[in-house]
Amino acid sequence: MVADAISGAGMAGLRPDSFEPELLKLVNPWLQNEAIPVIACGMVGSKQGWTEAPYRCVPCSPMQAESLISVRSSDPRLDVWIVPGLMQKAPPDVIRGEEVQLAGLLASQPEFDGIVCLPGTHSKWVRVSAGEVVGFQTTMTGELFGLLSTRSVLRHGMGNGWDDRAFSAGVKIGLAHADKLVARLFSIRAEGLLDGLSPDAARSKLSGLLIGAELAAVKNWWLGQEVVLIGAKTLCANYASALHDQGLKATILYGTDMVLAGLYLAVRQDKP
Amino acid sequence: MVADAISGAGMAGLRPDSFEPELLKLVNPWLQNEAIPVIACGMVGSKQGWTEAPYRCVPCSPMQAESLISVRSSDPRLDVWIVPGLMQKAPPDVIRGEEVQLAGLLASQPEFDGIVCLPGTHSKWVRVSAGEVVGFQTTMTGELFGLLSTRSVLRHGMGNGWDDRAFSAGVKIGLAHADKLVARLFSIRAEGLLDGLSPDAARSKLSGLLIGAELAAVKNWWLGQEVVLIGAKTLCANYASALHDQGLKATILYGTDMVLAGLYLAVRQDKP
Repeated sequence: MVADAISGAGMAGLRPDSFEPELLKLVNPWLQNEAIPVIACGMVGSKQGWTEAPYRCVPCSPMQAESLISVRSSDPRLDVWIVPGLMQKAPPDVIRGEEVQLAGLLASQPEFDGIVCLPGTHSKWVRVSAGEVVGFQTTMTGELFGLLSTRSVLRHGMGNGWDDRAFSAGVKIGLAHADKLVARLFSIRAEGLLDGLSPDAARSKLSGLLIGAELAAVKNWWLGQEVVLIGAKTLCANYASALHDQGLKATILYGTDMVLAGLYLAVRQDKP
Repeated sequence: MVADAISGAGMAGLRPDSFEPELLKLVNPWLQNEAIPVIACGMVGSKQGWTEAPYRCVPCSPMQAESLISVRSSDPRLDVWIVPGLMQKAPPDVIRGEEVQLAGLLASQPEFDGIVCLPGTHSKWVRVSAGEVVGFQTTMTGELFGLLSTRSVLRHGMGNGWDDRAFSAGVKIGLAHADKLVARLFSIRAEGLLDGLSPDAARSKLSGLLIGAELAAVKNWWLGQEVVLIGAKTLCANYASALHDQGLKATILYGTDMVLAGLYLAVRQDKP
C-alpha cells in the first residue's frame, strides 16, 4: 500500500526537537503498536537537522545499510533512520538527499556506468561507476534563478509563462559566454527596457542563461557522454532540451520515483 | 552653505504622488518664499519614479542642461528637475544616477579620457572621451553579493568581518575561472563544511569571486588601461586592490563628492 503526505515544514523552520512532532502530524494515522521503520534523507541529517548524519566520503556506494544513522525517538511506534550525505575532499563538495536517488537508480540499473545530472536548487553532476559514486560537482543554478527572478531588479520584468525560443537563446549565450555571466544577467533588464523583451521571454532567457552557464561550468562532465537526468518533470525536460542543443541525448528519470526506489531499498536492508 | 538630509524611502516604496511629500519632509526647513531649484537623479526618474525622464542615447555628454526634465510640483517653493539616465543600443544597457557622477568627474577634469568604474549594486564600466560617454557595461555584482550572502544557502557560513587574503584568493579564482562561477559559488559552502573556511573568510571570498568574475566579464574594458573608480570608500579600495593584483593602477574618487559636483553643475546650468 502506498500513501503519501507532505508538509511545508523544512529544516530552516524546525529545531532539532520539533522534527518528531512534525513527522507525527503527517504519519500518525499510519502508525500501529509495533515500531515501523522510517527512513529519512536530506537536510534532516544536517548539523541543523534532527540528528546529524556525518557525510560519507566518495568514492563509495551512494547508500549503505551499515551507515544509516539511528535516531533516538520518544515514540515507540517509530524506528527512525537517517541516510547520510556524501562528501568529496578535492574539490570540496557535499551532497545530502540526492544520494538516495542515486541508490534508487542503481537499484533498477545495478550496472549503470556514466554521468547523472540532478538539476535543482543546487544541481549535482555525478559520476557513477561499478556501483559507486566516484565524484560529483554542485552548481547553484536553481537557487540563483529563484533569487534573481523574485528578489533582484530582474523581478520587475519577469512573467510566469514560458518561451522555448528565449530559453534556447539563453542557453546558447550562457554556454558560449559563461565568463561574462554577471554582465549578461543585467542585459535581460536592459533588453526589457529598450528592446521590448517580454516578461515570459525574460524569465525563460534567465533560466537559459543560468543553465547554459552551468553546462559551461561542468563541460568536462557531459562532453561526449550520455547523461541521465533525475529530477522534476519540467526542469528535466528543460535540461534535456539544453543538452539536445549540444548534440547530446539525455534520459529522464523522475526524482520522486528514484527517491522512493532508494528509500524502499533502505527499508529492506538490514540496519547496523 | 552645505546641509544634508537622508531618507530611507526609495522608489520601491513610493508612488509617483508620494515623492513630493517625502522630499518636503527632508528639505522643508531649508525652503524660503522663492522657488529653489531642486536637482534629482537616479530612480526618481524611472518609469516607477516621480516623473519618467527618458534615457538619452550614448554617445553623448553625461548630463546636459537642455535635457533636464521639469517636474510639476504643487509647492511654489520647489523648482524640481530630474537628470535623465543614459541608454546604449548595442549591446542594450542603461544607466540611471551614475551619469551625474560622470558629469561631476568631467566638471573637475574636462579633458578626462579613459575608463571609469562605478562599483555598486549594478557596477558600471564606462568609456569617457572628448567630454562624452562613449559606451558602458553593467554587471550585477553588488546585487548578487547581497542576495547570496544574506538569502542563499551561503548565508549560513557568512561572517561580518573581512579577510584580505581570502578576498584576493577569491578574485584570483573568480577571474581565472569566471566560466565556472555557478560551481565556484557553492564551493564556499563546501569549504565551510569540510575545510573549516571561517565565516569572515567565506564572506570575503564570495566578494572576491564575484568581483573577479566581474573583471573577467569586462576584461576588454580595463586591460592595459588606467581606471578611475568612483564609489563608496571601502568598496573602491577592494576594487583597487583587485585591479592592483592584475598590475593596474586605479585612482579613487568618492561617489558622494562626484554626485555633489555633478548636481552643482546642474544647478548652475541654464534649464531648458
